[in-house]
Amino acid sequence: MKRYDQLTKDELNNLKVDLEKEIALLKKLNLKLDMSRGKPCKEQLDLSMDLMSVLDKHSNLICKDGTDCRNYGVLGGIEEAKELLASFMENKIENILIYGNSSLNVMYTMVMQAWIFGIMGNTPWSKLDKVKFLCPVPGYDRHFAICEEFGIEMINVPMSEIGPDMDMVEKLVSEDDSIKGIWCVPKYSNPDGYTYSDDTVKRFARLKPKAKDFRIFWDNAYTVHHLYEEREKHDHIIEILGECEAVGNPDIVYKFASTSKICFPGSGIASIATSVNNIEDIKKHLKIQTIGYDKVNQLRHVHYFKNLLGIKSKMIEHAKILRPKFELVLKAFDSELSEIGLVKWTKPKGGYFISFYGMNGTAKDIVKKCAELGVKLTDAGATYPYHKDPNDSNIRIAPTYPSTEELEIALNVFTTCVKYCTVEKLLS
Amino acid sequence: MKRYDQLTKDELNNLKVDLEKEIALLKKLNLKLDMSRGKPCKEQLDLSMDLMSVLDKHSNLICKDGTDCRNYGVLGGIEEAKELLASFMENKIENILIYGNSSLNVMYTMVMQAWIFGIMGNTPWSKLDKVKFLCPVPGYDRHFAICEEFGIEMINVPMSEIGPDMDMVEKLVSEDDSIKGIWCVPKYSNPDGYTYSDDTVKRFARLKPKAKDFRIFWDNAYTVHHLYEEREKHDHIIEILGECEAVGNPDIVYKFASTSKICFPGSGIASIATSVNNIEDIKKHLKIQTIGYDKVNQLRHVHYFKNLLGIKSKMIEHAKILRPKFELVLKAFDSELSEIGLVKWTKPKGGYFISFYGMNGTAKDIVKKCAELGVKLTDAGATYPYHKDPNDSNIRIAPTYPSTEELEIALNVFTTCVKYCTVEKLLS
Repeated sequence: MKRYDQLTKDELNNLKVDLEKEIALLKKLNLKLDMSRGKPCKEQLDLSMDLMSVLDKHSNLICKDGTDCRNYGVLGGIEEAKELLASFMENKIENILIYGNSSLNVMYTMVMQAWIFGIMGNTPWSKLDKVKFLCPVPGYDRHFAICEEFGIEMINVPMSEIGPDMDMVEKLVSEDDSIKGIWCVPKYSNPDGYTYSDDTVKRFARLKPKAKDFRIFWDNAYTVHHLYEEREKHDHIIEILGECEAVGNPDIVYKFASTSKICFPGSGIASIATSVNNIEDIKKHLKIQTIGYDKVNQLRHVHYFKNLLGIKSKMIEHAKILRPKFELVLKAFDSELSEIGLVKWTKPKGGYFISFYGMNGTAKDIVKKCAELGVKLTDAGATYPYHKDPNDSNIRIAPTYPSTEELEIALNVFTTCVKYCTVEKLLS
Repeated sequence: MKRYDQLTKDELNNLKVDLEKEIALLKKLNLKLDMSRGKPCKEQLDLSMDLMSVLDKHSNLICKDGTDCRNYGVLGGIEEAKELLASFMENKIENILIYGNSSLNVMYTMVMQAWIFGIMGNTPWSKLDKVKFLCPVPGYDRHFAICEEFGIEMINVPMSEIGPDMDMVEKLVSEDDSIKGIWCVPKYSNPDGYTYSDDTVKRFARLKPKAKDFRIFWDNAYTVHHLYEEREKHDHIIEILGECEAVGNPDIVYKFASTSKICFPGSGIASIATSVNNIEDIKKHLKIQTIGYDKVNQLRHVHYFKNLLGIKSKMIEHAKILRPKFELVLKAFDSELSEIGLVKWTKPKGGYFISFYGMNGTAKDIVKKCAELGVKLTDAGATYPYHKDPNDSNIRIAPTYPSTEELEIALNVFTTCVKYCTVEKLLS
């Protein structure tokens, strides 16, 4: 088989006719499949049903320090939950705050507090003419949505396998004091599945931003979310807060994590790890926002996981379910798309996504064509600020939610649509 | 016994000596009692332990509409939870949004959204020279803290047994478009325990504020929190949202409630009831803040209470524990303080507080004196904006948390300190 860009116009036209027939057949299947979001599947949720029974009406809901989890109070979380999250995040207990069920909400809160009240006595961002964030692209749409909501200007920074373009990051933050933050998913990144190299993390920790209130928004969403059991197949990353402390830059990072893709998404506990100075600054405002988060649920997670080992062994169970799905995608891409050329994809060892790069100018068409055939994908452009992929190339593949059977059909639809849209583009 | 203001200076001086002796004896007890916050006591928390067992590892966590409570999604809450809260709040399901564990956080969020983004296309409050809230006084310190945090100017409005001074409210909101809100605890108010009269609620619903984005912040925290079982001893209040709709003013009110003082405080579910237009406006921003709140906990509460009857019968159990404590306070005040004159207190039939009014200029001294004897009260002034009680008279008594034995001792301390500080004031 030849690469598509080596085909003659006639060959392309013949191919198009064949593909149109295939598409007509797929259309008749009346599919309704959703590969749009990074949601765990039913089998993954079933893994954590014991969470529902670790506490019952006979349980002691009193913490080691005497706190009654049933009553009001304890802003920042119970000690036991801080211990658990600290072990999982590789941080010290004094650097941890526990929130409610959503780490996205914690990130939003950090932007909101900076916007209205300012960080550590600096001018509130709302009072500035211009606030900008750096956005490694492709990235996570919900990060970008927060910036868009606040009217924060987003600047694209290219991603590579070792992380964002650090030359560009260093230059921009050192020159422009309206740049106040950068969104990072440093491990098994969304959507590429890349993990920042040691050098990248070290350069982050050593940033010398012009803005004193510049913060790295370090969304470590997939820290233990490996696809393979063997340690040598895990990506590793330097713990950023420790690195920042070591080089005398302790306040520069807000690090986020949650248990949401470890047990039940939306019913977990979320956390920030940051310097003690930042924590004091955050709590000053947080205490006005709420009396405290759900301590019973915090205790439930502590009883369920017990320690880091409990979390890690749960992740091995998840990997057993997810690995075949990721491998199915890669296999289908390999067998159907590797020879046509013009397209590429990532091969992550963890996280929730595979990033597909179609021929420039085809991503929107592919997603639209798939939708017509009943397969819902993440919108093309969603992985870029303002939904604008400058190349119209990237599509985020989320293989976790559908069953293997559904995934197989969806991949058939997807690869057919990729071929069809590539041919169409070449003919246009 | 004579009223204190009828005593001669000599009599007062003799009394002072006696009281000093009493205080010295109380000091020796080395007490450590807390009557500062409206927290349920252990026995109340024990009432809801079954909540911990209604869901377990064998439970079906799928909603009627197919929603898997374990997974992401469903901003605004599951239908079952909306039904439960709708019945409890006397509203329709389409007017309900379910949030996380804190109604205070919902109120904060409403102010925050208005501040940054504006209500229904109106200018964001942050862009205005001046934003003011009306604050019926005495009131709830955490409401006032939100205003203070945002730099919203607070205007005191006097409370009476039928609610805030509505002549003043109507006049101010119709004249001044910088007045954007009013804090109300309409039933068993904090701290007085007053319930707004029908006439007051009707006048609220008919307000014609100059500011289009004026909202009534209707914190119905104690809607089913009666101290007496008999229906004829319950306070009743007109449901405000229905009344607002009836008079063509549907968007003017945000009504708040939660299950926090019905089962576990801090682990319950909170809710807003408001017009469908407001709900759309709220969700537009809420969807950026979070993917959704804890649906498993929502389902847990639905399974536990089942319906309004379940909530009401739970409240009867609470009342059995709380009524004796309130009666103990009233009995102590009656026997120790009714004859000295110059002081008064409220006699609520529900809620969490009794409001005590000392002789002008004594509240701070009383609270300080109690603290010296190991009895912690809510700070004097806390029930007023900026912590400034113009009369230095009001003290919020929170009798729910201590045991009856502790309460008895605390009341001994309190009434002794009231007498002492009143005598001191008269002598000064």
